[in-house]
Amino acid sequence: MSGLGFDLIATDGAARRGRLTTPHGVVETPCFMPVGTAGTVKGLYPAQLRAIGAEIVLSNTYHLMLRPGPETVASLGGLHEFMGWDGPILTDSGGFQVMSLAKLRKIDRDGVTFRSHLDGSEHRLTPERAVEIQSLLGADIAMQLDECIRLPAPTGEIARAMELSLDWAARSKAAFGTPEGRALFGIVQGGDDRALRSRSAAELVRLGFDGYAIGGLAVGEPRETMVDIVTHLAAELPESRPRYLMGVGKPEDLIAAVAAGVDMFDCVHPTRAGRHGHAFTSRGVLNLDNARHRDDPRPLDETATSENARTWSRAYLHHLVRAGEILGAIILSEVNLAYYLNLMAAMRLAIEAGTLEDCAASVRAGWARGDLDPIG
Amino acid sequence: MSGLGFDLIATDGAARRGRLTTPHGVVETPCFMPVGTAGTVKGLYPAQLRAIGAEIVLSNTYHLMLRPGPETVASLGGLHEFMGWDGPILTDSGGFQVMSLAKLRKIDRDGVTFRSHLDGSEHRLTPERAVEIQSLLGADIAMQLDECIRLPAPTGEIARAMELSLDWAARSKAAFGTPEGRALFGIVQGGDDRALRSRSAAELVRLGFDGYAIGGLAVGEPRETMVDIVTHLAAELPESRPRYLMGVGKPEDLIAAVAAGVDMFDCVHPTRAGRHGHAFTSRGVLNLDNARHRDDPRPLDETATSENARTWSRAYLHHLVRAGEILGAIILSEVNLAYYLNLMAAMRLAIEAGTLEDCAASVRAGWARGDLDPIG
Repeated sequence: MSGLGFDLIATDGAARRGRLTTPHGVVETPCFMPVGTAGTVKGLYPAQLRAIGAEIVLSNTYHLMLRPGPETVASLGGLHEFMGWDGPILTDSGGFQVMSLAKLRKIDRDGVTFRSHLDGSEHRLTPERAVEIQSLLGADIAMQLDECIRLPAPTGEIARAMELSLDWAARSKAAFGTPEGRALFGIVQGGDDRALRSRSAAELVRLGFDGYAIGGLAVGEPRETMVDIVTHLAAELPESRPRYLMGVGKPEDLIAAVAAGVDMFDCVHPTRAGRHGHAFTSRGVLNLDNARHRDDPRPLDETATSENARTWSRAYLHHLVRAGEILGAIILSEVNLAYYLNLMAAMRLAIEAGTLEDCAASVRAGWARGDLDPIG
Repeated sequence: MSGLGFDLIATDGAARRGRLTTPHGVVETPCFMPVGTAGTVKGLYPAQLRAIGAEIVLSNTYHLMLRPGPETVASLGGLHEFMGWDGPILTDSGGFQVMSLAKLRKIDRDGVTFRSHLDGSEHRLTPERAVEIQSLLGADIAMQLDECIRLPAPTGEIARAMELSLDWAARSKAAFGTPEGRALFGIVQGGDDRALRSRSAAELVRLGFDGYAIGGLAVGEPRETMVDIVTHLAAELPESRPRYLMGVGKPEDLIAAVAAGVDMFDCVHPTRAGRHGHAFTSRGVLNLDNARHRDDPRPLDETATSENARTWSRAYLHHLVRAGEILGAIILSEVNLAYYLNLMAAMRLAIEAGTLEDCAASVRAGWARGDLDPIG
């Protein structure tokens, strides 16, 4: 398959500095993909995403299939046109949201039937339909349908879901074909079991995909388990193809997974935290709802790349959060995405320079220092 | 008093083309002031307000006195600094919100005691305290405290509230003094009674203010009554000072009141309507929630000055509104404020050219034409 260019530019230990080439532009890796769940990254215009360095966004098949429907998006020119984002788009397959959001889901070998969390209407997703939906959306990078389960789970159950996901991987690949300039990723499953993960990875590599995702993590397991599985898998996945850790995570998770050799990330955390009044800064996460910020004229973070983080007073942001003002969510979502994207940019530079470990230590030291002393 | 420059540049019938000069900049009139209720115009950054031509914003004494408190705002450098708006700010006096939002209010000759709609805490507003709060906020233009009543009301009740407001006007003026570069407006009350309105206006003029507001309209009376009172009053207010119609209104109200000689307006309608999925266009108001927009790739209004109105498809906006996505509110609030501000700019040009009637007829003809035919 050749739907996606991937060049490895530098390495630093297991960490990789790479470059994805898609019909909608280039993506420097390791990269973070802001999540545009329903065809919009909550609270930001596409131009604002560009301005803070986003090069690729993710959108959700599950949400878009329910509303407005993939045929509608296709008739309007595809998702890029629909949401006004002309850069690359990765879409997931719907598997994760079927697990986490849908009601009354019933999985069989052929696919999954579920009811919409919006209106209770019945829908069906098969590997073939998931690929078709993502083609209708016009995704640059599509994901195979998989069965995602929560952890902890019995080994037999993890193995069953992993084998089913492998079967669906083969069907996804057959249905996808080799469309010009479009890529399909397989998804490694296997829960917290190294042997099952290895079998899943080996089988997917045998099938051959444009990239390999690690799914089914950050679903209830301890953080060390996640890092262990990622480290274990990154060593078994082909060097020549990008690796994508799905739905992870917090900044410390990104650092650990980049060091282990992961190239791509997505997570709703920065925008969701922003809507809840939290700000990522070089000195850790601040809760703007906290009364300590009430009279504080200082900005969130004088060292941030985001102008929002350098200009608005904590007192004003505290006020906006307390008053439930939409501008608070807008500003903090931007601040947090900018933080994530800047962290990735810093790690990319560090990998090129062979100093990722120092970079990570310095970032962690900032968090450990904690916030500025309260004023007065 | 000389806290505010006002130059009359041109007239067209009763309509006036003027210019306010404040320490924070010039405001071309007739002007519309976006409402930043709690120190933020909902959904827009200050820079976005500038970009669509806003020259002055309004903020609410009632909201800011409850949260975060005027002393807090003052200690943070004043409202301009707090909210990041370096242009002129007009603050109201709190009278209107005490009527419309506060609980258990008790009016006496000295002032009004009420409970906060937020937490039930008790607060007191007197003419002197209202002026003090607005000074703490750093308003370029402050308003006297008045008693605002709903219509219809018995004549005796209207007269009582009007006389009390006159008494408070005198006390407000005495308390305000003549601070350099800051202005105080009196507020004409008198409900739907022309004689009471005339008496209120004459008495305020006798006291002498930097500008004269018409309060207590758009509070339940028929629209023709409002236009009648405004027309009646504009002829009785001094030519040399700006006239401000408070809290009004819809675009057709702005046109009628500009023609009657009003110079300044504010209203929450454009941002509130935007949050509810409505868009102001040259062909009238569109409800984006309506299913007719579901598959419509056309923009809201190809003739609009707002890039948002010219670029996003109706289908995408329909989707955002249906999905309750924050970006829908953001885009439509901007579209609507831009529409209002552009309408004012068009009327300013028309007054200079002596063609306000033609301008108004042309705008109304666009609305009468109605929306584009549905597609397909």
